[in-house]
Amino acid sequence: MNGLPPDDSTTPGARTLRDVARLAGVSIGTASKAMNAGGRLSAETRAKVLRAAKTLDYRPNDLAQSLHRARSMTVGILSTDSIGRFTFPIVEALERRLFDRGIAIFMCNATDDPLRERRHIEQLLGKRIDGLIVTARRADKRAPIVPVARGLPVVYVFSYVDDPEALCLLPDDEGGARLAVSHLARLGRKRIAHISGPRHFEAVQLRAKGWRAALNEARLPVVDAKFLSGRWSEGWGREAVETLFGRGRDAPDALFCGNDQIARGALEALKDRGLSVPGDVAIVGFDNWNVMTDATRPPLTSVDMNLGALGSEAGAALLEMIGGKPLAGVRRLPCSLVVRASCGAHGPIA
Amino acid sequence: MNGLPPDDSTTPGARTLRDVARLAGVSIGTASKAMNAGGRLSAETRAKVLRAAKTLDYRPNDLAQSLHRARSMTVGILSTDSIGRFTFPIVEALERRLFDRGIAIFMCNATDDPLRERRHIEQLLGKRIDGLIVTARRADKRAPIVPVARGLPVVYVFSYVDDPEALCLLPDDEGGARLAVSHLARLGRKRIAHISGPRHFEAVQLRAKGWRAALNEARLPVVDAKFLSGRWSEGWGREAVETLFGRGRDAPDALFCGNDQIARGALEALKDRGLSVPGDVAIVGFDNWNVMTDATRPPLTSVDMNLGALGSEAGAALLEMIGGKPLAGVRRLPCSLVVRASCGAHGPIA
Repeated sequence: MNGLPPDDSTTPGARTLRDVARLAGVSIGTASKAMNAGGRLSAETRAKVLRAAKTLDYRPNDLAQSLHRARSMTVGILSTDSIGRFTFPIVEALERRLFDRGIAIFMCNATDDPLRERRHIEQLLGKRIDGLIVTARRADKRAPIVPVARGLPVVYVFSYVDDPEALCLLPDDEGGARLAVSHLARLGRKRIAHISGPRHFEAVQLRAKGWRAALNEARLPVVDAKFLSGRWSEGWGREAVETLFGRGRDAPDALFCGNDQIARGALEALKDRGLSVPGDVAIVGFDNWNVMTDATRPPLTSVDMNLGALGSEAGAALLEMIGGKPLAGVRRLPCSLVVRASCGAHGPIA
Repeated sequence: MNGLPPDDSTTPGARTLRDVARLAGVSIGTASKAMNAGGRLSAETRAKVLRAAKTLDYRPNDLAQSLHRARSMTVGILSTDSIGRFTFPIVEALERRLFDRGIAIFMCNATDDPLRERRHIEQLLGKRIDGLIVTARRADKRAPIVPVARGLPVVYVFSYVDDPEALCLLPDDEGGARLAVSHLARLGRKRIAHISGPRHFEAVQLRAKGWRAALNEARLPVVDAKFLSGRWSEGWGREAVETLFGRGRDAPDALFCGNDQIARGALEALKDRGLSVPGDVAIVGFDNWNVMTDATRPPLTSVDMNLGALGSEAGAALLEMIGGKPLAGVRRLPCSLVVRASCGAHGPIA
């Protein structure tokens, strides 16, 4: 069954893709696809090849693969939605990373139109791109890129697909929420409400999960009525404050908001009600968008998704995949908390 | 001196570039460069060729030129500064326009680093791009792209250079300001102040010019102390209101602001002083940025630079230039005024 010449078994480092294909009982083309993320193969075939590669301790030769592939030194970035505030720090960092390796980037906006997306991908394949980055306006689930079934390396960033073979890079929304809420709890806040965006967003669910986890960890009560889901706007922040504070008693002493716009609306509504921030109510936002965080009075404490790091990591991962390393799975990169005055960490401002 | 065969003079529509070159006394290569914007030629030589082309009623054959050039069907977009809020609507519209013609776009951020810019251009030239778009974060003057001296079509958009041979597309800042101020004057406002960004921005100077022109046209006094130049921030809008309204008498009854953030800061500072908007003071912003215009109370009337139209026009111009049509000069595209409640057009809100 194992048709390898005997001397090969004594030099496992020198195994070739041909050896792997032989052991797995597949063609070299199939073995190559299996070793690269994104190839259209049955899970069974892929597993067989990966087992063979492991048995033989096979490691792809980056340089040989690159030469073999006759790389175009170009990659595509496909934005499934309009490029926006979240996408540009990602794309900028990615562009920088790839440019430093001599790779140029094709930019495509599919603006949520499947036909347009398909035409974009066909165009990119016609340009013989070495890899593809798929991103979106919000880190939400999308359909896998279908025609990329030719072993083309693909990285999904700020966007994810239901495919265990795909590599998806996302901010750790749950972890970010825990940072914010634990911080408020450590500052002595007891009734921490959470105002967020539309419930169908994965990020909204994960941030709410983080809020609950941090409350449990701090042994604070989790009151479901203190999680309000609405829009991503200042207007919603204002409305939610009316709901939370209109009841009179048991009003929150802290608000963790799903984005900075909600936080700003909430902050202004609190002031309109004669409440002080952070004296009466502490506030933490999400996104760390300087347009908002610098304009609120007091300046807004906020969770930063480190989108630049996300873009840079996506670029590095794509380079590895182009070099022949198969990568898959969901990677969530840590957020950080940027502390300003609205959370009361610098002492209450009456 | 005219070495053309006699029959040619009777069929002016069929003139070729060879005919033009002969009449001008230059090589075909030089004539070709002269007919395309961006070629490195003396102004004298270019003028001679253009005169010859005019004499012969020569029109370039787009298709023949395209075939001759062996087009790569790619263009580059070079952003001299980080890609931002103003660049994206431009780039999106441009991308759409070019994609519909089968042209893919390379995206490059030079982030204000001349060495990086040079490396980007070299990379793009290596990819044999058919044309180049140069843009910037703010519509301000920059140095012409130096190494693009090989007849490569270049369009500057939201960015301009001191070169009569270059094509620069910009929003009509002066016209936009006139729209805003004339509108306020027609609504009966008499003391219209102007709060804007840093004075070294060309856009700040042009908007101030438009403010003066509209006041003159409405026979309202132009008081230089009513033009305040500062930062592009809400904080500056607040400070400027303290300056304008702290004096007590002769306070403005309207503010035309250089951007929407300044307008929002001013609006909040007026409310803090107990003044109503638009009852006591009408406000108009600039940029029509929905994040700001929808969040202020009342919603903000603002000047829209129509950046999508600017991007689309840049794409169309680049296509014409790639097709062989020489284009040059500064084109300023009209702004429009988006009326909401802050200007008082819907009746004063007490």
